[in-house]
Amino acid sequence: MGDVNRQIVLAERPGRHGVTLDCFRLEVAEKPRPGPGQLLIRNLYLSCEPAQRGWIAAGANYSEPVPLGGVMRSFALGQIVESDDSHWPAGSLVYGRFGWQDWHVSDGRDIDRRCHAADGPLELNLHLLGLTGLTAYLALTEIGRPKAGETVAVSTAAGAVGSVAGQVAKILGCRTVGFTGSAGKVRQCLDEFGYDAAIDYKTAGDLEAALKAAAPEGVDVYYDNTSGPVSDAVMTRLRQGARIAIVGTMAIPSHPVPQGPRYNRAILVNRATVTGFLAFDWKAQFDAAAKQLAIWHREGRIHTRHDVAEGIEAAPAHLLRVLKGENDGKAMVRIAEAE
Amino acid sequence: MGDVNRQIVLAERPGRHGVTLDCFRLEVAEKPRPGPGQLLIRNLYLSCEPAQRGWIAAGANYSEPVPLGGVMRSFALGQIVESDDSHWPAGSLVYGRFGWQDWHVSDGRDIDRRCHAADGPLELNLHLLGLTGLTAYLALTEIGRPKAGETVAVSTAAGAVGSVAGQVAKILGCRTVGFTGSAGKVRQCLDEFGYDAAIDYKTAGDLEAALKAAAPEGVDVYYDNTSGPVSDAVMTRLRQGARIAIVGTMAIPSHPVPQGPRYNRAILVNRATVTGFLAFDWKAQFDAAAKQLAIWHREGRIHTRHDVAEGIEAAPAHLLRVLKGENDGKAMVRIAEAE
Repeated sequence: MGDVNRQIVLAERPGRHGVTLDCFRLEVAEKPRPGPGQLLIRNLYLSCEPAQRGWIAAGANYSEPVPLGGVMRSFALGQIVESDDSHWPAGSLVYGRFGWQDWHVSDGRDIDRRCHAADGPLELNLHLLGLTGLTAYLALTEIGRPKAGETVAVSTAAGAVGSVAGQVAKILGCRTVGFTGSAGKVRQCLDEFGYDAAIDYKTAGDLEAALKAAAPEGVDVYYDNTSGPVSDAVMTRLRQGARIAIVGTMAIPSHPVPQGPRYNRAILVNRATVTGFLAFDWKAQFDAAAKQLAIWHREGRIHTRHDVAEGIEAAPAHLLRVLKGENDGKAMVRIAEAE
Repeated sequence: MGDVNRQIVLAERPGRHGVTLDCFRLEVAEKPRPGPGQLLIRNLYLSCEPAQRGWIAAGANYSEPVPLGGVMRSFALGQIVESDDSHWPAGSLVYGRFGWQDWHVSDGRDIDRRCHAADGPLELNLHLLGLTGLTAYLALTEIGRPKAGETVAVSTAAGAVGSVAGQVAKILGCRTVGFTGSAGKVRQCLDEFGYDAAIDYKTAGDLEAALKAAAPEGVDVYYDNTSGPVSDAVMTRLRQGARIAIVGTMAIPSHPVPQGPRYNRAILVNRATVTGFLAFDWKAQFDAAAKQLAIWHREGRIHTRHDVAEGIEAAPAHLLRVLKGENDGKAMVRIAEAE
């Protein structure tokens, strides 16, 4: 393994059956050599996450889709093993967009964060201290701006992002209400992530009534990962000056644009604010956010779950489990040990 | 007239025919006497505006509906004729919620702004320097925050609020695109209010295509008075970081909540912000805003139209013209001269 670069590449785009194992192929390339000013990164952990479905679809998105035959785009935790850049000395742990492969050559621009072994288990860097945790923390604090005593509602409350958002809101002194999709996840929300109330949106029936019971005074902050019926219920229960962070739209298709209730009057009457959040717009805050999250984790105030598969060849199947909602915690694949 | 208080009161709530003349009744009451600490205001101009439909409807709104038999709620320009409050000396011109009546007794809390004869014709205080102009200016500058060179779209672009918003955006160096509802208003948008482009939403057919032609680079700021099809088109053409001020929902019913396209992905992908605006939340900025608007008006950079009816008994019919869109400029009724 040390002398070759195993890569999972995109074999075909998702068709009518969605993402399948046939979309991917393992290839073995030569271990790359860094050029002047470049770094050679050995990947230790590869991330599997819902956004990857969008990255291999043909439609427009934040970024160009992964080309056919190209290495599957992915966040990863790696270790710099060769460096021609004094800002990134060999041995550094780094988190960034390094792809599903053993080795990655970087000019530094695809590194999103310098990691620190002292922050805790390495897995944390792909979750709580990685894009999911940073997204949870920054969208909540920068867009939601919750104040102690306010009520914060979270959709996909037991998910990777939602579970961190809910816990941070609780740490900040808020009442938290989570929406999730099974009785088991409701229990997890209450027992593990500290939500004050959790609603199984699949069985609750009248979601507005369920939310009214869970948050009688209404919702000040809504951390929205889904759009769809959960959002429709929340938008009927806004308090004045409510802040809604749109972080994901998991419950609705991208094309064609689906129909739903027009929220305009709810936004107007409550002088609410709805804002779309993309973590990379807030890169300057990543280090401060990760530092705070690491402290809370060390203090035992934030709980995380990691669903770790072993070996690069396991990555496609592990991603499929994520897309089916079968993962138990943040999904990642371990492919090497740090030196 | 000097010794009695003529009042237009609410005779019945709008029924299936909407607001009609039968909703109102003229009554003659005694001229009121102010008590300790109170002011007696003689109304000079009464306002007629779309919001009044909401104030007499039974449904929930920002405020309690006008009670049956109660004086019709209205903005007005008045002059203080007796005062037991040194903050508001007799002779002061004041703008506030004084109702459709000759005389109003106030404790000062329903006064929204002190007016100044030097600012221009008195009518300005019910329009450019009143709630419509303040709403236009503050929602645009505080929520829309347009920068020179950006594109600002306005719905009901020739209306009382929209026409000021469009002109302010132009003064601030923006490219302005107005949506309006007739060929005549399109001409007015272009010739009188200085829009760079104007679209007749009733005849344009494909609104997205029309907007794309008018604003090829997309929309940075959307001043939304309507919701509905115009908004649906704008939301497909947002630029990154777009700001949408929801100021009105004229094109959609309040109940039941109508269906429309879900904007979530457009908001997310463009990291847009949608915010509901109610002018009274910004009362602390009223004087500064009015001062700026008065300067621009004196410089000839903002054009206004006033549709002035004469005599308090004309108020209900004048309001009906507003609700049918038949008014030509900001509608108001003159009932007395300033001393």
